[in-house]
Amino acid sequence: MEEILPNFLKNRASLTPNKEAIVFNKNRLTFQELYEKAYYTAGVLAAEGITKGDYVAFLVKNDLRTVITLLSLHLLGARAVLLNNRLTANELLYQIKDSNSLFLIADDDFQLTAEDVLRNSSSLKVIFKKELDTKPFQKPVVQETVHINDTCTIMYTSGTTGFPKGVIQTYGNHWWSAVGNVLNAGLTDKDVWLCTVPIFHISGYSILMRSLMYGMKVILHESFDEKRVLTDLVQEKITIMSVVTAMLQRIEKAAMGAFPDYFRYMLLGGGPASIDLISSCMNKGIPVYYSYGMTETSSQIVTLPPEDAARKIGSAGKPLFPAQLKILDEKGKELGANEAGEIVVFGPNVSKGYLNKGPHSVDGWFHTGDIGYKDSEGFLYVLDRRSDLIISGGENIYPAEIESVLSSITGIKEAGVVGMDDRKWGQVPIAFVVCEEGTEIPAAQILEVCKRKLASYKLPKEIRFIEALPRNASKKIVRRTLREWIK
Amino acid sequence: MEEILPNFLKNRASLTPNKEAIVFNKNRLTFQELYEKAYYTAGVLAAEGITKGDYVAFLVKNDLRTVITLLSLHLLGARAVLLNNRLTANELLYQIKDSNSLFLIADDDFQLTAEDVLRNSSSLKVIFKKELDTKPFQKPVVQETVHINDTCTIMYTSGTTGFPKGVIQTYGNHWWSAVGNVLNAGLTDKDVWLCTVPIFHISGYSILMRSLMYGMKVILHESFDEKRVLTDLVQEKITIMSVVTAMLQRIEKAAMGAFPDYFRYMLLGGGPASIDLISSCMNKGIPVYYSYGMTETSSQIVTLPPEDAARKIGSAGKPLFPAQLKILDEKGKELGANEAGEIVVFGPNVSKGYLNKGPHSVDGWFHTGDIGYKDSEGFLYVLDRRSDLIISGGENIYPAEIESVLSSITGIKEAGVVGMDDRKWGQVPIAFVVCEEGTEIPAAQILEVCKRKLASYKLPKEIRFIEALPRNASKKIVRRTLREWIK
Repeated sequence: MEEILPNFLKNRASLTPNKEAIVFNKNRLTFQELYEKAYYTAGVLAAEGITKGDYVAFLVKNDLRTVITLLSLHLLGARAVLLNNRLTANELLYQIKDSNSLFLIADDDFQLTAEDVLRNSSSLKVIFKKELDTKPFQKPVVQETVHINDTCTIMYTSGTTGFPKGVIQTYGNHWWSAVGNVLNAGLTDKDVWLCTVPIFHISGYSILMRSLMYGMKVILHESFDEKRVLTDLVQEKITIMSVVTAMLQRIEKAAMGAFPDYFRYMLLGGGPASIDLISSCMNKGIPVYYSYGMTETSSQIVTLPPEDAARKIGSAGKPLFPAQLKILDEKGKELGANEAGEIVVFGPNVSKGYLNKGPHSVDGWFHTGDIGYKDSEGFLYVLDRRSDLIISGGENIYPAEIESVLSSITGIKEAGVVGMDDRKWGQVPIAFVVCEEGTEIPAAQILEVCKRKLASYKLPKEIRFIEALPRNASKKIVRRTLREWIK
Repeated sequence: MEEILPNFLKNRASLTPNKEAIVFNKNRLTFQELYEKAYYTAGVLAAEGITKGDYVAFLVKNDLRTVITLLSLHLLGARAVLLNNRLTANELLYQIKDSNSLFLIADDDFQLTAEDVLRNSSSLKVIFKKELDTKPFQKPVVQETVHINDTCTIMYTSGTTGFPKGVIQTYGNHWWSAVGNVLNAGLTDKDVWLCTVPIFHISGYSILMRSLMYGMKVILHESFDEKRVLTDLVQEKITIMSVVTAMLQRIEKAAMGAFPDYFRYMLLGGGPASIDLISSCMNKGIPVYYSYGMTETSSQIVTLPPEDAARKIGSAGKPLFPAQLKILDEKGKELGANEAGEIVVFGPNVSKGYLNKGPHSVDGWFHTGDIGYKDSEGFLYVLDRRSDLIISGGENIYPAEIESVLSSITGIKEAGVVGMDDRKWGQVPIAFVVCEEGTEIPAAQILEVCKRKLASYKLPKEIRFIEALPRNASKKIVRRTLREWIK
């Protein structure tokens, strides 16, 4: 059966019009108000020529107007191409052209970049967010329903080499992701989700979708600031927050006492987490659901269930109810428990493919390129991103394992490991270490700890001390940059 | 995209193997144990010849073995035809033949009926539940996944006239129903659902599906007994219970003090409820979610959201998030607020159609035959089942309205109203009244109250005092019987 659902925003406004939907700075909107503002914006965009099926690029930061404008596309049936606002004009241009976006909605802050982009794209029409209040309005044709296979958003994945690819996320992908989350983590009428991650990433956008489906309030911050997090935690009675490791570290450090009882969980994603960090959080009464997911899975696809958080620390957990997971060797054979191989996933939350590139596989299984294994109980342990795999003298080395050891050393704040070409071994691991402020640790002392915990072939051949790890907008380590530093 | 999900039972056993799944009398099974027992039973049924796609009829009562056997069909990919165990052999035979069931799994209690059925159906193979432990086992072919369009269950609707029709419920219908419930009512890891309604009805079967999807414990009773309900409420820390009006009345009467804090809600369905009853429950701290649904919608499709329970008492609420609702006049034109017409629903939880009868409509909208209206805020008020509509002198009379007045009279326990043919007016309403034990109220006094509350054409032309209303297995009033009593 071809599944048709009511328009998410309009339906939510109809079900719980007076419930608060979103808070940004001091501005609060109910679902009815959010709908009305999105309706008005849809009318303005319609007058600009945007219509059903159009790709509309967004170069924006987190704020209320961004949320309203993104949701206005739901009403028009247009698709949002969410651009990372840290990209250069050249990189943006590539994504705009690849997605065939005829419109670019830009934040005033990015005016110079937008103008740069415009200079090289004569067919593009740029609309600045600040203009949306003053431009003409025409009655929009509102999409009363959505088909679950309709494209909702396009997000480009950074890509380890070569050009980025536009991940197609349908309404169904977002829907099933949000349903999978509820079946794992539950839902209460007191839930309030704090979003300090970028809306242009799936981590942020997925919170907006959950808000509509759950009838749940979102507290939106322009960017991450641990002091504001701790303030709003109490003032807004936040129950859930999405974080990456670097954010959680700062929160854990800044948190003075135990978290309030009503706080339910930190949804931790975006890359490897140190076991020590998760333990420290648990000791401070900060519940953490460690998860694994990516743009192609429309947010988390594997999450550690609450009941196993303590027992299986370090594991990313089990697949969300609608999803499936297997580990394959290089020949595509399914591996057994405790055998490391490629993580391959399946489910209705998994993107069908990349824009203009056809489906990513014949059978619907998505090959993540990441390496991991399932233990005998089926819990996934993510070892590393395949592209980061270091192969040294025929032995596989997973950087995350070394990083975990390094960052557990007192005085070390964080660490990144990459492979360096080596005439004898093929590759050898090189460690980049960031010490806590005002702390100095001799490299020899660090190696002593490593020697105790790691097989000799895994020992970093060099330790370099740096000020901070290079991270992208989702706070993931950019290993490519580390590799460049080696050269 | 054709949606494929992991086998519900096997997946749940894999995700939370050690969580308690079901409790019946003193027997407790975890999801892993439930899976293992269902697996064994699947092997026994496979040895009997049951294979993927087969229709298997069930003539059973609520117990652990019934649950295990029903779920074993999920593993085999066979379809359960759920027979109402109050039917006569002739009625059962009709449904078995109509569904082309080659197997009948029967409870020992219904041995005589089953043998009666068998006598008239040479191709039928009867398997008694008690034999399932001793029959041979063969390794079953387990369906690792289900397609959401696969048929899961067939339930026959009583039908107002003529022969019953087999409602096809797919895995997707059950799935979306359970998702819609969660998005409305939330989900916590402490949820425990009490099932005292028959598993052969959608009210009971849907609880089993929710259990698998939510990872939630079910307390199963063989039948409804308010004293056991109140005992288990505390002993098993029940948070949710499905009830029909007659059950809720008995619980409300028997409840001595306030309900425990952890009790979340009574899901009230299966027909009209008196506003007085809901009010009494609210006063006693028994939260009630009044809902509207039917076999064809795979359980509730419209439910009063918690935040509106007090303000919109008497309303069945708003559609569950994935569903849609409209009110049509007799020509199929959509009606506005406060205009009564036929209730027409749409959604992925709505059955595609009846067995061997094709889809129920071209556009997927299901015409319920029930009468209701939406108020200006979109809340549904169910007036009556269309088949029960009494038309008198061109005026429409909805029995529920009269029944509500009658049952609000002190000393009257319950009331049923039907139309009697009348030469002058076409039809006139006749009331059947059940008084509280030891109470007698003169008909004239009852009519006095009615006169105060109802337009003159709605007044019952006759009041008959009876011991109890005729009700079917789901405790709905059987108006057909009342009509026969008139004759």
